[in-house]
Amino acid sequence: MGLHKYFQSLSDLEGIYRCPGVFKYQEHSVASHSFKVATIAQFLATVEARNGKDVDWKTMYERAINHDYSELFTGDIKTPVKYALPKLRELFSQVEGSMTKEFLDKEFPLEFRKTYEERFKEGKDGSLEGKILSVADKIDLLYEAYGEIQKGNPESLFFQIYREALASIIKFRDMVSVQYFIDVILKEMIDEETISQTKIKEITKQLLEADPAR
Amino acid sequence: MGLHKYFQSLSDLEGIYRCPGVFKYQEHSVASHSFKVATIAQFLATVEARNGKDVDWKTMYERAINHDYSELFTGDIKTPVKYALPKLRELFSQVEGSMTKEFLDKEFPLEFRKTYEERFKEGKDGSLEGKILSVADKIDLLYEAYGEIQKGNPESLFFQIYREALASIIKFRDMVSVQYFIDVILKEMIDEETISQTKIKEITKQLLEADPAR
Amino acid sequence: MGLHKYFQSLSDLEGIYRCPGVFKYQEHSVASHSFKVATIAQFLATVEARNGKDVDWKTMYERAINHDYSELFTGDIKTPVKYALPKLRELFSQVEGSMTKEFLDKEFPLEFRKTYEERFKEGKDGSLEGKILSVADKIDLLYEAYGEIQKGNPESLFFQIYREALASIIKFRDMVSVQYFIDVILKEMIDEETISQTKIKEITKQLLEADPAR
Amino acid sequence: MGLHKYFQSLSDLEGIYRCPGVFKYQEHSVASHSFKVATIAQFLATVEARNGKDVDWKTMYERAINHDYSELFTGDIKTPVKYALPKLRELFSQVEGSMTKEFLDKEFPLEFRKTYEERFKEGKDGSLEGKILSVADKIDLLYEAYGEIQKGNPESLFFQIYREALASIIKFRDMVSVQYFIDVILKEMIDEETISQTKIKEITKQLLEADPAR
Amino acid sequence: MGLHKYFQSLSDLEGIYRCPGVFKYQEHSVASHSFKVATIAQFLATVEARNGKDVDWKTMYERAINHDYSELFTGDIKTPVKYALPKLRELFSQVEGSMTKEFLDKEFPLEFRKTYEERFKEGKDGSLEGKILSVADKIDLLYEAYGEIQKGNPESLFFQIYREALASIIKFRDMVSVQYFIDVILKEMIDEETISQTKIKEITKQLLEADPAR
Amino acid sequence: MGLHKYFQSLSDLEGIYRCPGVFKYQEHSVASHSFKVATIAQFLATVEARNGKDVDWKTMYERAINHDYSELFTGDIKTPVKYALPKLRELFSQVEGSMTKEFLDKEFPLEFRKTYEERFKEGKDGSLEGKILSVADKIDLLYEAYGEIQKGNPESLFFQIYREALASIIKFRDMVSVQYFIDVILKEMIDEETISQTKIKEITKQLLEADPAR
Repeated sequence: MGLHKYFQSLSDLEGIYRCPGVFKYQEHSVASHSFKVATIAQFLATVEARNGKDVDWKTMYERAINHDYSELFTGDIKTPVKYALPKLRELFSQVEGSMTKEFLDKEFPLEFRKTYEERFKEGKDGSLEGKILSVADKIDLLYEAYGEIQKGNPESLFFQIYREALASIIKFRDMVSVQYFIDVILKEMIDEETISQTKIKEITKQLLEADPAR
Repeated sequence: MGLHKYFQSLSDLEGIYRCPGVFKYQEHSVASHSFKVATIAQFLATVEARNGKDVDWKTMYERAINHDYSELFTGDIKTPVKYALPKLRELFSQVEGSMTKEFLDKEFPLEFRKTYEERFKEGKDGSLEGKILSVADKIDLLYEAYGEIQKGNPESLFFQIYREALASIIKFRDMVSVQYFIDVILKEMIDEETISQTKIKEITKQLLEADPAR
Repeated sequence: MGLHKYFQSLSDLEGIYRCPGVFKYQEHSVASHSFKVATIAQFLATVEARNGKDVDWKTMYERAINHDYSELFTGDIKTPVKYALPKLRELFSQVEGSMTKEFLDKEFPLEFRKTYEERFKEGKDGSLEGKILSVADKIDLLYEAYGEIQKGNPESLFFQIYREALASIIKFRDMVSVQYFIDVILKEMIDEETISQTKIKEITKQLLEADPAR
Repeated sequence: MGLHKYFQSLSDLEGIYRCPGVFKYQEHSVASHSFKVATIAQFLATVEARNGKDVDWKTMYERAINHDYSELFTGDIKTPVKYALPKLRELFSQVEGSMTKEFLDKEFPLEFRKTYEERFKEGKDGSLEGKILSVADKIDLLYEAYGEIQKGNPESLFFQIYREALASIIKFRDMVSVQYFIDVILKEMIDEETISQTKIKEITKQLLEADPAR
Repeated sequence: MGLHKYFQSLSDLEGIYRCPGVFKYQEHSVASHSFKVATIAQFLATVEARNGKDVDWKTMYERAINHDYSELFTGDIKTPVKYALPKLRELFSQVEGSMTKEFLDKEFPLEFRKTYEERFKEGKDGSLEGKILSVADKIDLLYEAYGEIQKGNPESLFFQIYREALASIIKFRDMVSVQYFIDVILKEMIDEETISQTKIKEITKQLLEADPAR
Repeated sequence: MGLHKYFQSLSDLEGIYRCPGVFKYQEHSVASHSFKVATIAQFLATVEARNGKDVDWKTMYERAINHDYSELFTGDIKTPVKYALPKLRELFSQVEGSMTKEFLDKEFPLEFRKTYEERFKEGKDGSLEGKILSVADKIDLLYEAYGEIQKGNPESLFFQIYREALASIIKFRDMVSVQYFIDVILKEMIDEETISQTKIKEITKQLLEADPAR
C-alpha cells in the first residue's frame, strides 16, 4: 500500500516489547527504546565532539533512530537466545535483511529505496557513529536492567543483563564519551541512595515534632 | 536450581504474548494458548474416539500441554516470519531443541530427563495424536483471528491468519473430527449474528412501549 | 449457539483473574492457572508412576484441564470468602453444577452431554487422580503467593495464602510425589538466593577492575 | 489493624473489576462505579428536589458512596449469576452481611461500629433515597453496556445487560427524575450520531478543497 | 449533546491517571480518587459530628464528589508543576473555571446551570466542609504515596509527596478529626509490620515440623 | 544527582500518555511519539533534500528527538485545553522553559548546559527544520486520530483532532514534502480498504469450495 504502510508501521513498534517472557515491573517497547538510544547517542556524540572528534551527526542520528526498525518483521528475539547463540543471531540478521528488502520493494517508491535500504541496515560498524550506536544501545539496556533491579525484581536474569551490558560498554573504553559515562554517570547510578521504609517513620516523626502546636 | 526453576518457569509463559507487534484488542499468552489447545484437542479426540478411532489419551494430552513450552527459550516469533520463511522456522526448531536439551541437563534430575526430552519435542507428527495437535493448534489460531476481526480490527493480517489457519485445518479434512468441526462448529461461527447499533434503538423503543404506564 | 459458543468461551477464562481485589504485581487468569495445574499434575503423576502407582492418565489430565471451567459461570470468588465460609463454598458448588448443566443442555449436542457433564464436575475426590489434582491446584496457588512475596508485595494476605496452601499440601504427605515436592522442590524454593542491590556495586566494581586497560 | 486497614481497603476496590470474564474494551472498577453512582444519584436527587420532593441528602449520598463496599469481601459476582439466581444473590447478601460485621468488629473502634454497620447495609429500600440508589446503580450499568456496544463489542451479553438495566429503570417510571432521564437523557443517547469512516474522506476532501492555494 | 454528554463524561475521569510520568506500581484514576476522598471525608465529618460540630452533610458530600470534575477539561497536571508553581496553579484554576462555564452553557439545560456551577467550583474554603475536603484530599494523596513506598518504589518523589501531604494535613491539626487521624490512624500506618522473606522460611519450617507424620 | 538523573528521566517519558481522559483503543507515550516524529521528519527532510533544499540534518534530528522532553515537567496537557486556549499554551511554554532551566542548572554539568538549553527549546520556528518539525508532529497526531477512527472509536474528538491536524499540515502546503505527503501518502490512507465481516464468510466459503475433496 506504499509509504502510508511505512508510516503506519511505526506504531507497530510500540507493540513489540523487549525481553518477552520475563516478569518486569515496567515494559519497554522497541519504539521507546529507539527514542532513548537516539537521545543517549546524542549525548555521547556531544562529548566526542567537545573533545575534538569529528562526528557525522546525520549518520549518527540516522543509525540510532532506525537501528531496530527491522524488528518489525521478526519481533524481539528472547534475550537468552541472543546471548546463547551468536550463530542464530547472524542468521536472523540475514533474514531481517531479506525481509526488509522485500518490504522496501513492495512499499517504497523506487526513488527512496536505496536511501532506506541503507537506513534499515545494522549500523554497528567500526566508525565513530557505529561505535556510538553500539554503546548507546547497551546503555539503554543497562538502564532497563537497573530499573528492574532497583524496583526489586527477583529475576536473576536482570543481573546477568546488567553485567553483560556493562562488559560490552567497557570494551569501548578508549572512547572519551564512554570514559565519561563510566567515571561520571555510572558512578552517580551506583551511589544513588537506596530508600528504606524506616525513612517514613523519620519523616512522620520529624514533621509531627516540628509542629509548634504540640 | 532444579525443578523449582521448571515450576517457576511456567509463569513466564504467561508473559509471552502471541503475534507481537500487531495491534490487538485482546492479547493471548502462550500459557493461555496451551490451555485452549489442550481443551480443543480433548474435544477432537472425543469425536475421534466416538467414531471408533483408538486415541492414545496420555500422548494426546501430553503433546497439547507441552507443545509450546520451548517458546520459553525463544519467544513467540512474529507471525509473518513464521509464514514467510519455513527454512528459518526449521532452524529455529533446531535451536529450540538444543536450548531445551541444555535446560533439561541443567535443571532436571537425571531420572526425569528422558521423559521430559520426549515431552518437550514438537509433537506434530503423522500419528492420530500428532494430527489432533496440529489441528487444535490451528483452531485456536483461527479463533484468535476471528476474535479480532469480530471486534473490528482493521489490520488485514488477521484475515490472512484466518485464511491460512483454515487452509491448514482443511488439509486434515479426512479426519472425522475435522469434518465435524467444519460442518458444525465453523458453520455456527459463520452464522453468528452481527450486532449493529440499530438494535439499541429497537430494544429501547420496545421496552418503553411495552410499559403499561405509557 | 452450540459448540462454537463453548470454543469461544475458552477465551473468556483468559479474562477471569484470580484473587480479585488485592494488589498484585502479576495477575494470573483462570486459563493460565489451568495450564499450570495440568503441567504440575503431569509432574506429580510422573513421580507416582515411577514409584509403581497405577496412574489413569486420561482421567488425570482431564480433571486438571477442566477443573475450573465452571468458574466461567460464577467468576473467581474472592479468596477470603473461600477460606472463611466453607458452607457458602458448598452452595456455590451446587450453583456451579446447575449452571453447568443448563449450559450443557443449551450448547452441547446430546451425544456429548454426558461426557462433558463428567468432565465439568469437581474432580477432587479420594482417587489418586483426584488427590493429584488437589495437590497440583495448591502448588500453583503456593507459587502465585510466593511470586508476590518474592517481588515485595506488602499485603499480608499472600503469607496467609502461602501458609494455607502449604498446610493443604502437607496433608497429602503420604503421597510419594508430595514427599518429593517437599523434600526437593520446596527446599530449592526456600534456599533461593535473595538478590540485594549491593550486588550491583560488586558487579560494577568487579567488571571495571577486571579491565586490563585500567 | 484498625481504621488504617479501612482507609487502605478503599484502594482494593480499585482492583475489583465489574463483569469479570467477558471481553470488554474498557474496564470499570468498583471504586469508579461508586463514584459514578454517587454523581448520577446526585443528579436524580436534584431533579426530585426541584419538583418538590423532600430529599434527605445525607442519606442519599451515604447510600450511593457505600453501596458496594461489601464487595470487598466477596468480589463482583459474575453478571450471569446475578441475573440467573436470585436465591443465591440473597444468600450472598447474608454472607456479605456477616463478613461486614466481622470486619467491623475487628477493625472499627466501638464508637463507630453502629454508624458504619448502617452505612455498609444494602440501601435499596422503598424510601426516596433507596429508589434513587436503585435507579442510579442501573443507569451506570446501562452506560457501561452502552459504552461497549458503541465501541463495537460483539458480545451479546451487553445487549442483555442494556435491556435488563433499562427494564429495571422503567419500573421506577413514576419518579419524576426517572421520567426526566427517559425523556431527555436516554433520548440524547439514542440519537447520538454514529460515526462512519466515510466521514474521514469527507473531512479530508473538504479541507483540501477549501484551501485557496489549490 | 446535553446531559447525556455529562453522564458519559464521568467515564472519562476513569481514564485520567494521577501523577503521570512517574513509575508507579499501582495507578489511580481521578474517578477512583474522588470516591476515596468522599469516603475519607465522610469519616472525618463523622468524627467532627460526634464531637459536637455542626456538619452540613449535603455540602460536605457534594464538594468531595465533584472536587476534581473540572480535571476533565485540563487533565491532572504533573505533581512537580503543582508543587513548584503556585502561580500557574492559580491560572489553571481560572482556566478550569472558564472551561467549566463553557461546558455548562453548552451541555446543561438552563434550569440546572446555577446548581452545577456551584458544584463544579473548587470547594476548599475556610468552612468546616471546605477544610474537611482539603484534609481528605491530602489523606488520599498520603495513602497513594505510602502505597508506592511500601511496595518498594525507588522514586524519591513519593517521599516528597508523603512529606508534603502530611505537612498539609498537620496544618489542620486544630480539627478534632485531624487530631484523631494523626493519633490513631497514622500511628497504625507507621506501626504496620514490614514483611520480610525470612518469614517464608519460618512458615514453611513451622508447618513441616508441626506435622505429626514426621 | 546529575546526568544519571537525565538518563533515567528518559524512561519517565514512556509513562506520560498523550490525550489523557479520552477512551482510546491504543495508548501512545511521549517517548513513542518522539520516535515517530523523528522518523517522519526524517522522511520529510529526505524529500526536501531530493528536491534541492539544503537540510541542516543535525538540527532537524535534534529538534525532532527533543521537542517534547519538557513535557516531563508538565505532563501532556489535555488536547481540548491545547486547542481551546492558545493563551494558556503560551504561558505553559514559559513555565516549561523555567522548569527546564531549573532542571539544567541542577542536573547538568556547566559544560553541557548551553547545548541542552538550546536542545530543550521549542524548535518550531520558521526555518526549514522548524517547519519540518511542525509538520511531522501533526502527521503523527493525524495518524493517532486515524488509528482510533479506523478501530471504531465512537468519540467524536478524534474526528476533531484529525480535522485540526490536517488543517495545520495543509498550511505548510508550499513545502514539497508536504505536497508529497498529501498527494501520495494521505491518498493511500483514504483509499485503504475497509474490512467488513462479510469477508470472513467469503474467505471460508472460497477455501471450502476450492477443496478438491468436497
